[in-house]
Amino acid sequence: MMLAALRGLSSRSTGSVMDVLLRSCSSRYLSTGFREEKDTFGPILVPLEKYWGAQTQRSLQNFDIGGEREKMPEPVIRAFGVLKKCAAKVNMEYGLDKTIGKAIMQASQEVADGKLNDHFPLVIWQTGSGTQSNMNANEVIANRAGEILGHQRGDKFVHPNDHVNRAQSSNDTFPTVMHIASATEINSSFIPSMEKLHSSLHSKSVEFKDIIKIGRTHTQDATPLTLGQEFSGYTTQVKYGINRIKDTLPRMYQLAQGGTAVGTGLNSKKGFDVKIAAAVAEETGLPFVTAENKFEALAAHDAFIETSGALNTISASLMKVGNDIRLLGSGPRCGLGELILPENEPGSSIMPGKVNPTQCEALTMVCAQVMGNHVAITIGGSNGHFELNVYKPMIASGLLRSLRLLGDVSLSFEKNCIRGIEANHGRISKLLYESLMLVTSLNPKIGYDKAAAVAKKAHKEGTTLKESAMQLGVLTAQEFDDLVVPGKMIGPSD
Amino acid sequence: MMLAALRGLSSRSTGSVMDVLLRSCSSRYLSTGFREEKDTFGPILVPLEKYWGAQTQRSLQNFDIGGEREKMPEPVIRAFGVLKKCAAKVNMEYGLDKTIGKAIMQASQEVADGKLNDHFPLVIWQTGSGTQSNMNANEVIANRAGEILGHQRGDKFVHPNDHVNRAQSSNDTFPTVMHIASATEINSSFIPSMEKLHSSLHSKSVEFKDIIKIGRTHTQDATPLTLGQEFSGYTTQVKYGINRIKDTLPRMYQLAQGGTAVGTGLNSKKGFDVKIAAAVAEETGLPFVTAENKFEALAAHDAFIETSGALNTISASLMKVGNDIRLLGSGPRCGLGELILPENEPGSSIMPGKVNPTQCEALTMVCAQVMGNHVAITIGGSNGHFELNVYKPMIASGLLRSLRLLGDVSLSFEKNCIRGIEANHGRISKLLYESLMLVTSLNPKIGYDKAAAVAKKAHKEGTTLKESAMQLGVLTAQEFDDLVVPGKMIGPSD
Amino acid sequence: MMLAALRGLSSRSTGSVMDVLLRSCSSRYLSTGFREEKDTFGPILVPLEKYWGAQTQRSLQNFDIGGEREKMPEPVIRAFGVLKKCAAKVNMEYGLDKTIGKAIMQASQEVADGKLNDHFPLVIWQTGSGTQSNMNANEVIANRAGEILGHQRGDKFVHPNDHVNRAQSSNDTFPTVMHIASATEINSSFIPSMEKLHSSLHSKSVEFKDIIKIGRTHTQDATPLTLGQEFSGYTTQVKYGINRIKDTLPRMYQLAQGGTAVGTGLNSKKGFDVKIAAAVAEETGLPFVTAENKFEALAAHDAFIETSGALNTISASLMKVGNDIRLLGSGPRCGLGELILPENEPGSSIMPGKVNPTQCEALTMVCAQVMGNHVAITIGGSNGHFELNVYKPMIASGLLRSLRLLGDVSLSFEKNCIRGIEANHGRISKLLYESLMLVTSLNPKIGYDKAAAVAKKAHKEGTTLKESAMQLGVLTAQEFDDLVVPGKMIGPSD
Amino acid sequence: MMLAALRGLSSRSTGSVMDVLLRSCSSRYLSTGFREEKDTFGPILVPLEKYWGAQTQRSLQNFDIGGEREKMPEPVIRAFGVLKKCAAKVNMEYGLDKTIGKAIMQASQEVADGKLNDHFPLVIWQTGSGTQSNMNANEVIANRAGEILGHQRGDKFVHPNDHVNRAQSSNDTFPTVMHIASATEINSSFIPSMEKLHSSLHSKSVEFKDIIKIGRTHTQDATPLTLGQEFSGYTTQVKYGINRIKDTLPRMYQLAQGGTAVGTGLNSKKGFDVKIAAAVAEETGLPFVTAENKFEALAAHDAFIETSGALNTISASLMKVGNDIRLLGSGPRCGLGELILPENEPGSSIMPGKVNPTQCEALTMVCAQVMGNHVAITIGGSNGHFELNVYKPMIASGLLRSLRLLGDVSLSFEKNCIRGIEANHGRISKLLYESLMLVTSLNPKIGYDKAAAVAKKAHKEGTTLKESAMQLGVLTAQEFDDLVVPGKMIGPSD
Repeated sequence: MMLAALRGLSSRSTGSVMDVLLRSCSSRYLSTGFREEKDTFGPILVPLEKYWGAQTQRSLQNFDIGGEREKMPEPVIRAFGVLKKCAAKVNMEYGLDKTIGKAIMQASQEVADGKLNDHFPLVIWQTGSGTQSNMNANEVIANRAGEILGHQRGDKFVHPNDHVNRAQSSNDTFPTVMHIASATEINSSFIPSMEKLHSSLHSKSVEFKDIIKIGRTHTQDATPLTLGQEFSGYTTQVKYGINRIKDTLPRMYQLAQGGTAVGTGLNSKKGFDVKIAAAVAEETGLPFVTAENKFEALAAHDAFIETSGALNTISASLMKVGNDIRLLGSGPRCGLGELILPENEPGSSIMPGKVNPTQCEALTMVCAQVMGNHVAITIGGSNGHFELNVYKPMIASGLLRSLRLLGDVSLSFEKNCIRGIEANHGRISKLLYESLMLVTSLNPKIGYDKAAAVAKKAHKEGTTLKESAMQLGVLTAQEFDDLVVPGKMIGPSD
Repeated sequence: MMLAALRGLSSRSTGSVMDVLLRSCSSRYLSTGFREEKDTFGPILVPLEKYWGAQTQRSLQNFDIGGEREKMPEPVIRAFGVLKKCAAKVNMEYGLDKTIGKAIMQASQEVADGKLNDHFPLVIWQTGSGTQSNMNANEVIANRAGEILGHQRGDKFVHPNDHVNRAQSSNDTFPTVMHIASATEINSSFIPSMEKLHSSLHSKSVEFKDIIKIGRTHTQDATPLTLGQEFSGYTTQVKYGINRIKDTLPRMYQLAQGGTAVGTGLNSKKGFDVKIAAAVAEETGLPFVTAENKFEALAAHDAFIETSGALNTISASLMKVGNDIRLLGSGPRCGLGELILPENEPGSSIMPGKVNPTQCEALTMVCAQVMGNHVAITIGGSNGHFELNVYKPMIASGLLRSLRLLGDVSLSFEKNCIRGIEANHGRISKLLYESLMLVTSLNPKIGYDKAAAVAKKAHKEGTTLKESAMQLGVLTAQEFDDLVVPGKMIGPSD
Repeated sequence: MMLAALRGLSSRSTGSVMDVLLRSCSSRYLSTGFREEKDTFGPILVPLEKYWGAQTQRSLQNFDIGGEREKMPEPVIRAFGVLKKCAAKVNMEYGLDKTIGKAIMQASQEVADGKLNDHFPLVIWQTGSGTQSNMNANEVIANRAGEILGHQRGDKFVHPNDHVNRAQSSNDTFPTVMHIASATEINSSFIPSMEKLHSSLHSKSVEFKDIIKIGRTHTQDATPLTLGQEFSGYTTQVKYGINRIKDTLPRMYQLAQGGTAVGTGLNSKKGFDVKIAAAVAEETGLPFVTAENKFEALAAHDAFIETSGALNTISASLMKVGNDIRLLGSGPRCGLGELILPENEPGSSIMPGKVNPTQCEALTMVCAQVMGNHVAITIGGSNGHFELNVYKPMIASGLLRSLRLLGDVSLSFEKNCIRGIEANHGRISKLLYESLMLVTSLNPKIGYDKAAAVAKKAHKEGTTLKESAMQLGVLTAQEFDDLVVPGKMIGPSD
Repeated sequence: MMLAALRGLSSRSTGSVMDVLLRSCSSRYLSTGFREEKDTFGPILVPLEKYWGAQTQRSLQNFDIGGEREKMPEPVIRAFGVLKKCAAKVNMEYGLDKTIGKAIMQASQEVADGKLNDHFPLVIWQTGSGTQSNMNANEVIANRAGEILGHQRGDKFVHPNDHVNRAQSSNDTFPTVMHIASATEINSSFIPSMEKLHSSLHSKSVEFKDIIKIGRTHTQDATPLTLGQEFSGYTTQVKYGINRIKDTLPRMYQLAQGGTAVGTGLNSKKGFDVKIAAAVAEETGLPFVTAENKFEALAAHDAFIETSGALNTISASLMKVGNDIRLLGSGPRCGLGELILPENEPGSSIMPGKVNPTQCEALTMVCAQVMGNHVAITIGGSNGHFELNVYKPMIASGLLRSLRLLGDVSLSFEKNCIRGIEANHGRISKLLYESLMLVTSLNPKIGYDKAAAVAKKAHKEGTTLKESAMQLGVLTAQEFDDLVVPGKMIGPSD
């Protein structure tokens, strides 16, 4: 009967009825009923227990793309809560009814706290302006605010457009939310994760400062360095990575709000843009300011391409680190074997010592994905037309995914790998002293030609340099030991 | 007390205890308790109600990356069900106990049917061989099969390794599952979606075959063509796209199974590889065969880069189509306005005719993401080492996401946009006859110089060609109408 | 005085005068003078000794981008020669004056032979339709054909548009030339290079078929395989790569010619498209056909994205091969050292055995560049508008560069690396027998627990498995040698 | 006879003899003879008239990849001149013979001035450390310096290694040269080009500040803005682009020199690194400093990925600008037609007003290529191993190509397009007043419902809002004109 009722609504929606029901079931319980919500397009049925309204429902039916895991990322939802709260606060200064304004602020806070996540069912793959998610936020907040004030869902006592979206357009709101969400994730989660990794790498660099090992260039044996020096390179890469992401923040802190539909600010009051940026800054504790040019802020998302570029560079850095560590830890018998990696899970049921560098693998997989997301964001960002870029949800969700994955995997890699790495002293020392490149130390004493002869003989016969030198009679064992001192080869000379 | 017990287990896991609990809560109910499971690494607590075992649990704790939406895609889980069922079937031919084998087949079928999805909690960002997801499948199927036979979870009556993973290695199993999942999605979902889009575009091409319109090159007015011809270009792009994806299937149908750990097939029996490919082919109805070279099949995933390349080409095609349609439908007054796009949701609350091309936007966003995923897959695919590529879960989930998004958005675009497009006859005709390029028709009659003069005058004064020609006295109205016949300009001459 | 004369021409061109002179100097000699050429835009000075005309000269002045090395690639120039020859031939069937037609054919042949390369000065970065290069070809051929017939350069006895470009438009000509150039390069150069590499890898695979070595998964020691098996994986990758590029040819063989300005074929005669494709097929010996849909053929270059995708896959394959070979050849003392790479140049002036894997480096650099070009081509290909894609020169030159580099480097890698690779038998054998994973062979005899104890003891004490087994008293030396036979571990069992 | 002599040399080089001759011919004259040069690998013939030596010659023969246009970019060659001059200067402080030192400085200056470009024949696709180009520089400078001092080429009076390469390794030299070349190009050419474009866009923004036009979002008609505001968005994008590239310079100014082979500085003296950075800073006038961590500086090129990322963002910005301008200039009759673009060449021989936006096309093609190069650089940069990244020549040449193309095309676009853009006042005004979205101005006076009725009627009947309003009798013509004032819609209200 419910189905029959639904079918009566319009011929267009017939196919979508099951979608409604199915989506309502996605939280594992059936909706107990529906209410009617309206927009300028007419009436539409919405699950009774949901705060969303007609425009959300339409998007749900018109964009059946990708399923549950493609939903708009939570940081975007939460940022809507922050923004709508600030908008209500500023709008009260410009005449919004205080009772309504406060209820909006309360409802928005619930969104910002993630308490109403279940009421944001839309996927990334919707309109490219993010209008539908903005309306989702407006509808949920309006219905929840109305409820707080004792009204029925759908009665529009608190109106999603007139009250919640007041002085705003999706076109300035969604980019504002993109910036709030990203800047917040960068500061609260991504940079701390990177700093933890940096600190751990630095500790290892100090711990390993006296361990002299063979260097490798072109993957071939080269002159020695300390293991600490090797790790100092990784440490510096991560340090610069943190600098790089921080350098992008000045443009990420610029908010589009106040530009309204095309950047002019039509329908907003003078000063609204500055006040709302200040309110967001206060709410988040981050130095947001109003964008110096609202046309740029709506029509382009260069700030996202730039920030994604920083993540791309960081990914390249971490791919190098991950690769080095798994190769230096390769073995146990037939690899380089210089590092002993922590054993977090069975590598093999029979072979002791088979420790798969699984954390390196998760890390480098994430790096590859971040590089891919960077291309997607670049393409989307370059394809805006006129006053609006309509790749906003893809760009936002791409950057947020990159930030989350790269932050999480850095933490995991630090905790489950870097922190527990030990040097395989015996192996490192064995390789160092077996290597032929130490022959360079003999030059000053026995001359280039004899030194070369020593090395060539050792290479040909598979012996050590020392044995070769003694067999050739050019040096005694004592002389050899006095001359060949790797510790003198790890820095410039006086 | 449970927490205290958990803490007692090992110092390493302290930080992860909350993870365990939180993850257990992710299905919205608290675990009512834990049982102990074991692997070669020792005992570990696992939620009572879950079928998974020790190795799954360890991965859950060691790879806390990305959260719920980063879980291994469902098609991979289901493909594990298919494969493990087939493996049991073939293993019975090689001596696996029939009772156990049949129970494994039954449990595997449940996995293949998606009934045990909640027991696959692992994320993409784990070991790059997918070993942990393979063990997740082995553990779940073993425990479920044991249960079917009346045994307790965790008692290993049906053993995850000895029985379920018999004659298999993660290193051949996971790539096999990648191929099964992808080939299945391509055949059951992606190609049908593309065919639907193709068919709809073709219908429009036929519907519009007599509508003559201005052509545009360099975005500038050019010689005319029919709207049907214009749509025939899109139709051909999609048709070739289908050919392209089909051309990649021969390599996608090759299964790695039987290569075991490094491609040699150690621990499997001769013929196992051929039999299991046959069993999978029978089970899925797709022409899977055993890979002609197992070393390539484990160490590289070129087939995925190739298939992703086909999706990349299709995305480029669809981005062109989406862009054209939104530009041809731009307006209602200040754009090109040749197409009337279906109105699926309010474009604006006040402006009639403001129909935002939201389906084009979802489409082009997806295309950009698929292009990005292609780069990620390429990078991952190129970075294998020796006998194994360890970017498998990223590669698999990237391709599956691209397939799902591109398939879904093609359906949505077809249903909510293409199908309902109407030609704006008046506008098309007005533009056509106002255009200056029709002057080329006058050449044979009045010569190049006079024709150019007609056009230049019209351009300068903003008049029509006809007015200009009459004012210059080179043609009568009748003569003009006889000569300027766009319908003769839409094909080669006899 | 010449400069003064030049300056008199137009105020716009003042800044460009030096460009003219400088460019004329680029062939290391100063132009001895200029002649005037005309187009619909008016007169312009052109270097006396050059065949090009007014439109070429304008492009030269308006697109001063990138300098010498950014010139339109030679295969495009040569393909213009092929096409214009065929067009003259077919046009004679449709009424083109025979004398003029034959002179055009002769001049075109000179272009096809590369004899007039110096008369094609334009860069890639011009109009996106390639119109200016098409006009460059028309002008050079017209002037040269006129000269053959005894006329002055610039007198247009043979007219670049009316005679040479007859029944053609840049919009169908340039894509036709793109397809001819690419298909020719693929067949005459790229595929043979890949086949040479394939053949050499296959020979190595056979040569190394009896050398048993340690396998490596996750970069960690794993079960053994033969070096021949390892190389068979590379061989298969290259073999499939050849298949992949061949699979793209059916769409590359489709020629746009006959579509003229927008795809309709306006200004061409019925049958022209089929005849010209046949003529090109005859001229080149390749199975070109006329494109089934000319609208697609002008407005999109999906065939190039597809072919570039095949090169992208091949690059991923070759990056894997290059990486493996340099790592397997790493050393001489502190790396894996299983392969001895040919020594082509001094790796180091003092260290014998330092052979840098320079060919692998050139190879992997090219692979990275091809992957990057693929993204550029994808972006360009996806951004066509309406009846024309205007990224043609970038797409064409990108693909041709990828083909050239990948072909050349494959030959170089084959000749200077693969062909000369030797197995380091001693090292391979040493690693194999030192490895702990051979312990798996003991299971059937002494059971899992004792086998594990043997391995653990060996790992802990750094001894061999044999020593460990004997010390534990579980096996005699003879028994050990009878059981541990790597040769039985390289395939499935009976 | 020469050939016979050559053949006698070694069997390996037989195939390469023609290469030598052919390459010698590449400057359009045949070499008149050869001399013998030596390295540790033995003797080899080198063209008499060339300064290069044995190692250059070997690379020429071993890396026959890509031909002329793939040669190492000139800015790299010149930067070698700068560096080797500075190295000689500093080395004299550390004991290098003054006579030799000064001759090296003089020869290096000639390299820096581009006078010896013909003596640098090597291609990008060589060893990934750039060693061969470093030796090319050492050999050319040594032979030229020797010549200055009256010695024969090849006699090594000035020794390429001992004197010219003194205290240096290719491994620190090549990255140093990469940084010098890039930072120099950025400062001397790229930023000035971008500033010129910025300034021109800003001028247009001011010029157009009073022209009110229709805005477009989702490509659909929206509320108005001024053409100046629209251009201010582009201006801001370019301004931020300049900021972005400048933000990357601090890391680009860090020089690897002094790290020698693996980053430790072995074989250099304390203080050498600081002194040489100071010398380069003085020579170039740019604030170069010694890299704070030499291990990072050799093993990674994150600074290049970062800078390439800035170019990637700038390309996305310029692609937006180029797309907007060609669409706003589309027409002349059937497009948007708001801008009149400069006519630089014939768009069509018959249609007046057909102005192809060719500069936009060159611009957007370059943008796509820069995005592609960014991916190549990212892949190369992420794939370093241990103490050395061996993708250096690809990374350097990729970035330099991107800088050159993007700089050149920006200048060309500015000069040949932006500077000459005019507003099509009549068309802009017509579209603005025909648009339906002005109806929003009526709301305060006649209410939402009546306003909507006015708009709907106008949309349906194809009339103007004014006509519709008058026909509905809701407003007089005077009232309408008083209310509908686009000039009041282009900013926030008081």
